[in-house]
Amino acid sequence: MTTLDVPSLDPARLDTPTVGDPRLARLSLNQKTVNGWSLRRAVEGCVRHGLPALGVWREPLADVGVRDGAAMIADAGLRVSSLCRGGFFTVPAGREQERAHDDNRRALDEAASLGAPCLVLVPGGLPDGDRDLRSARSRAAEAIERLVPHALEVGVRLAIEPMHPIFAADRGVVSTLRQALDIADPMPPEAVGIVVDTFHVWWEPGVEEQIARAGDRVASYQVCEWITPLPPDALLSRGMMGDGHIDFAHLTRCVVAAGYRGDVEVEIFNADVWAADGDAVIDTVARRYAELVEPHL
Amino acid sequence: MTTLDVPSLDPARLDTPTVGDPRLARLSLNQKTVNGWSLRRAVEGCVRHGLPALGVWREPLADVGVRDGAAMIADAGLRVSSLCRGGFFTVPAGREQERAHDDNRRALDEAASLGAPCLVLVPGGLPDGDRDLRSARSRAAEAIERLVPHALEVGVRLAIEPMHPIFAADRGVVSTLRQALDIADPMPPEAVGIVVDTFHVWWEPGVEEQIARAGDRVASYQVCEWITPLPPDALLSRGMMGDGHIDFAHLTRCVVAAGYRGDVEVEIFNADVWAADGDAVIDTVARRYAELVEPHL
Repeated sequence: MTTLDVPSLDPARLDTPTVGDPRLARLSLNQKTVNGWSLRRAVEGCVRHGLPALGVWREPLADVGVRDGAAMIADAGLRVSSLCRGGFFTVPAGREQERAHDDNRRALDEAASLGAPCLVLVPGGLPDGDRDLRSARSRAAEAIERLVPHALEVGVRLAIEPMHPIFAADRGVVSTLRQALDIADPMPPEAVGIVVDTFHVWWEPGVEEQIARAGDRVASYQVCEWITPLPPDALLSRGMMGDGHIDFAHLTRCVVAAGYRGDVEVEIFNADVWAADGDAVIDTVARRYAELVEPHL
Repeated sequence: MTTLDVPSLDPARLDTPTVGDPRLARLSLNQKTVNGWSLRRAVEGCVRHGLPALGVWREPLADVGVRDGAAMIADAGLRVSSLCRGGFFTVPAGREQERAHDDNRRALDEAASLGAPCLVLVPGGLPDGDRDLRSARSRAAEAIERLVPHALEVGVRLAIEPMHPIFAADRGVVSTLRQALDIADPMPPEAVGIVVDTFHVWWEPGVEEQIARAGDRVASYQVCEWITPLPPDALLSRGMMGDGHIDFAHLTRCVVAAGYRGDVEVEIFNADVWAADGDAVIDTVARRYAELVEPHL
């Protein structure tokens, strides 16, 4: 269960970091954590709570337009830690694949407009009725390689997100950091990196070695929790840090040791979190982050 | 969704293999697939449908007693393909660990009494409040090693079951074939093997190479399906072969190429399957197996 602390009952609230607290210097709010909010509300929420950065999603960005959205974020003095998301290129060769390629080029352009250091790539799942996982994985690798020149041109890194195997069939055929790094290996590090998302990779045998191997390929560090019992909707099964089984101190130290110096995004897909008041969610995020993650940066 | 074919409406039923059909020669019914049935009903079900083997669970075996259960199975002319399950030894050192060790020794004895070639080991999850996954994994490896002498003495293989990472927190900290084989490597193959369960390993990058690497360490081959959307209870999220995303032809050929010549167990944890009539379930199992698995053995 995700605990959304009731502020008036929670003595730890006294320690909720607020505007100006140096512990928030690298905390980024991924828009999905406040899924009901528009881009403007998310920007204002970050400012109100003292978070210096935002992980932007393309759909709410499109609602206001890329130019206006970029201006809104810049005017508020926020950084964009990543743009979510490109990818979904396991579709069969042909028109669909061309459409995916073009869409990913546009996503790179949008990321550049926002000054985002990276575009998060969700590889995509198996096409309907297709059981050939190896071929789908090859198509994903080829599609990434094909985007490299444009990524270099606009100065935005492609960040491959290995996804928990719970999503291998329908969302992300890249399942481990090891596999993501095998894909990235032949491509230039300034063009292709990987995402370390604690929810997706915490269980990976040898995750420590893979994060070390990644080195400056770590393009984004995202934190959220693995909770049990797993909520019924797999897509919304992520929890608030501290409510589950992940050792955030350990993984954070691994990411730091690999040389990562960027923002830390909190990205939580969870029906309870989405139903809660956004300001209360950000309070909890800030407090849990200050307790569990920030001391190890 | 799991499709339990309605026999009277299903033309494919005409091809349901029945008693004496050579296609059933290696098909084993894991008791969990007919979870509501006693051992006696499962034995009778196998005989009625022409399945030559049974994957036995300890709890329904205990209900009749090991000696009587073994006699019942032998009298029916069935083989026992595996005993489920030992393991659960990620508990902290001390009394709990001793208890787990003793229980696993007893489970090996029971498997020997049944003539089962292997004892399936479910490693266990993280103890309550424990976030140190690496240590839990080490404890599992040490506990397996400690059982090797007894396994050799009674002539039953310990079969490490790597489990889908969806279960890493609460059920099985061994998450990949690669990891299971790394654990098994220093131990004698006649004492320690691995389980290839399609549900658990289908997504693993390089699963083909790992099955080949396993060679004669493949102690058990279990088939069931990964379906989407994933049913709400993760523990009951397995599907009937053919209803989901797994390429059974491919994985079966890999297991055969590794040299596996044993029985093929169908083990399905699923609320819909469990709610259905056991005979209808076995019919569907036999038909799907004959269509999707057996031709590739």
